[in-house]
Amino acid sequence: MLTIALPKGALLKDSITFFAQAGLDFRELLDPSHRQLQVLAAQGTARALLVRAQDVPVYVQYGQAQLGVVGFDVLEEKQPQVAHLADLGFGHCRLSVAVKSTSSYGSARELPAHCRVASKFVHCAQRYFQDLDLPVDIVPLYGSVELGPLTGMSEAIVDLVSTGRTLRENGLVELEQIFTSTARLIAHPLSYRLNSDNLCHYIKRLRIDGIRIESEAPA
Amino acid sequence: MLTIALPKGALLKDSITFFAQAGLDFRELLDPSHRQLQVLAAQGTARALLVRAQDVPVYVQYGQAQLGVVGFDVLEEKQPQVAHLADLGFGHCRLSVAVKSTSSYGSARELPAHCRVASKFVHCAQRYFQDLDLPVDIVPLYGSVELGPLTGMSEAIVDLVSTGRTLRENGLVELEQIFTSTARLIAHPLSYRLNSDNLCHYIKRLRIDGIRIESEAPA
Repeated sequence: MLTIALPKGALLKDSITFFAQAGLDFRELLDPSHRQLQVLAAQGTARALLVRAQDVPVYVQYGQAQLGVVGFDVLEEKQPQVAHLADLGFGHCRLSVAVKSTSSYGSARELPAHCRVASKFVHCAQRYFQDLDLPVDIVPLYGSVELGPLTGMSEAIVDLVSTGRTLRENGLVELEQIFTSTARLIAHPLSYRLNSDNLCHYIKRLRIDGIRIESEAPA
Repeated sequence: MLTIALPKGALLKDSITFFAQAGLDFRELLDPSHRQLQVLAAQGTARALLVRAQDVPVYVQYGQAQLGVVGFDVLEEKQPQVAHLADLGFGHCRLSVAVKSTSSYGSARELPAHCRVASKFVHCAQRYFQDLDLPVDIVPLYGSVELGPLTGMSEAIVDLVSTGRTLRENGLVELEQIFTSTARLIAHPLSYRLNSDNLCHYIKRLRIDGIRIESEAPA
């Protein structure tokens, strides 16, 4: 059976609309009274797994799902071994460096060496500051990263910014954008190459600009 | 100012009741309409930070909070450099190995070598199977770990069990208990030793059996 890993949260609704193009109806997952983590579609020939955004590439990498939708930010942080099929064009946000609006820093390069930077995106933050040749102490947090500068724990944060409202409400300003992120369609490389579970039939029915189908899959 | 890191979620209510013993009223954090992550108490001489359970030891280790409440499970997984003051006796749960109820395994030792075990507690799971001398492939997940065996991705899971309802609902059974967990009071080691912000005044007012005060703090 074709299995698709879908991310809980902000990308779910648009992901479900996207797969509806291929006749895969997973709208049941949007019903708040629905507690199941799996939904069948297309007369039981396909199913969706509803998982945390960070877990989508895990299910796809291990081949438990042939396809998945996940933000580019998660791919950049986790660097999973999955085939990257297409940019789906929704879920726009950016990974940014932010500091207190009262601070005097004009760019990330002006941050003091060995200062603390709080982030959920530990690897992305490390790579960014390594590329700047600025040694900093990355403090790994799971949530409410904006508390870092507010409590004095960190001089800066590296966090996802969508509307910028959370930053503004907490008296923070963006200093740099590290990258912009959108939702991506990913696939299990071997399933994609071998066209398991009629994968390419569904991919062809998804209207994606510039997507390569299996005969053109990268070597 | 004395700062206390409190965990969002299951331990919050009992943690607030616990600190009320020392005249610290953080009940505002229980109001669902309250969106602030910081609350003052004791005429502004103390404050609580509301953070993710996994972040509590980070705030305490970095000295941004002098005290924190966190589950023993988080301490076992993260092994933070914090002083462990007391077992608070609430928030009982256990870290367990579970498998499908239809499987034939009678103990964790019977799991096949190199099988996959899904877990949010990657380090605890690794240590447990290393001690058993059983090489397994730990699959790191962030949520809904019970999907691991259901989708066929993993043979077993290592996860927190409280009532056992989630396991039962997903057709899983506990095979082994790795450890039991309760809420713990932790402190920033140096603040505790130096009695910063009148820390020991508050600790003495918390009715904790067998707690050591600063003059008896471990070397």
